[in-house]
Amino acid sequence: SGLVHIKNPHLDLMEEDVLYHLDLGTKTHNLPAMFGDIKFVCVGGSPNRMRAFAQFMHKELGLAGDGEDLADICAGTDRYVMYRAGPVLSISHGMGIPSISIMLHELIKLLHHAKCRDVTIIRIGTSGGLGIEPGTVVITDTAVDSSFKPWFEQVVLDDVVVRSTELDKDLAKELLACSKEIPDFPTLIGHTMCTYDFYEGQGRLDGALCSFSSEKKLEYLKRAYNAGVRNIEMESTAFAALCRLCGLKGECFCIL
Amino acid sequence: SGLVHIKNPHLDLMEEDVLYHLDLGTKTHNLPAMFGDIKFVCVGGSPNRMRAFAQFMHKELGLAGDGEDLADICAGTDRYVMYRAGPVLSISHGMGIPSISIMLHELIKLLHHAKCRDVTIIRIGTSGGLGIEPGTVVITDTAVDSSFKPWFEQVVLDDVVVRSTELDKDLAKELLACSKEIPDFPTLIGHTMCTYDFYEGQGRLDGALCSFSSEKKLEYLKRAYNAGVRNIEMESTAFAALCRLCGLKGECFCIL
Repeated sequence: SGLVHIKNPHLDLMEEDVLYHLDLGTKTHNLPAMFGDIKFVCVGGSPNRMRAFAQFMHKELGLAGDGEDLADICAGTDRYVMYRAGPVLSISHGMGIPSISIMLHELIKLLHHAKCRDVTIIRIGTSGGLGIEPGTVVITDTAVDSSFKPWFEQVVLDDVVVRSTELDKDLAKELLACSKEIPDFPTLIGHTMCTYDFYEGQGRLDGALCSFSSEKKLEYLKRAYNAGVRNIEMESTAFAALCRLCGLKGECFCIL
Repeated sequence: SGLVHIKNPHLDLMEEDVLYHLDLGTKTHNLPAMFGDIKFVCVGGSPNRMRAFAQFMHKELGLAGDGEDLADICAGTDRYVMYRAGPVLSISHGMGIPSISIMLHELIKLLHHAKCRDVTIIRIGTSGGLGIEPGTVVITDTAVDSSFKPWFEQVVLDDVVVRSTELDKDLAKELLACSKEIPDFPTLIGHTMCTYDFYEGQGRLDGALCSFSSEKKLEYLKRAYNAGVRNIEMESTAFAALCRLCGLKGECFCIL
């Protein structure tokens, strides 16, 4: 049907659904009218960047006006920002798995309430690269955790549930083909490693704490490279797991 | 000495330290002049709230001007905001452990470079309560994970290091005593549970995914209550672990 899958039997029994961190809700907003025609959702960490992206899309799509005055749909909260340009939503998610997870739960419910069909979601973020040139774009085939495992361990109450983090292979190929049409746009498909920590978790030597040597760091990053990892960021496993489970065609597209 | 402890032998060998996510650095800013006299750091998730808190402190401290035009010290980045009012810094940290960890690593290095002494850091946030009235403030004695364990599991490269999450007991008592001087300010000391996920991790029935029953949820929350947990949020274990390791007197002070 192309609809988003909500896997929560409690939701149908609720009189109202408040998307708290987006400052939207089923009683306060007409979600089908506001979002029913959305076909693409682009998400990234930084609010300013996601505003700039919406303005860019506005111009690329040739929409009326210069796009400078796009309104933040989530203006009532400072947790996330959301802009739209035609059929494209542009939303910020902050940094790290917990932050993107809150946004994705509420976004998926929003797409469900709005009865959106055939939505593609792309994370457009920054990342650190492994053995590749700065400026390269990595399209993720599979997100892996800090042990290079292709899964996301979700804590549900106090149980741990393991979820697949494979992303949409056809969408990855399609994005790669698009990028090849643009000159000087180095792009490759690879695994993306997702960590919970920027400093100690990604082998950085310049955090407030660092207990490993430069050699130990390089040895770890080499192992990651040999396991197919080409870039490192902090959201892809949760993103991949949630998109898969809810039937959203999803992809990560990160610049180094 | 009252100085902050940096536990990173690599840092002394670096010519410059860029606090990337704060848009500050040792070569671009005179950190001792800007921050050397800071004695208190208050942190919370929401940028707007931390701005309002700095304005409130500005007035409470009787500083010149109305405090309405306080400048964001991190204006060059949209990752975090930072304001100061006299000896008090007010900083946002976003949502979740990864987000607060990045900020704390860079804040701790900032306090180190600025040669600050005897700094107290307090997280002033919102949280969900367990078996207590809305509006109550919980002062955390110990932060616990989703299995009610008083520790934080930090992934360092691909090893897991277990760190204590006990907070400063004297500071907790001092804050409790202060709160008792204010009429109608219900406050208690208890454990704070810190989760990686807002929906499935905290027993919410209204996420995009929910695989447990209302009974199972209540059973889990009862077990948490019996283990001493009085509120639930998403940053306290990482906050407690980092403060302890770096010799910062730290406390969480969360309203329900």
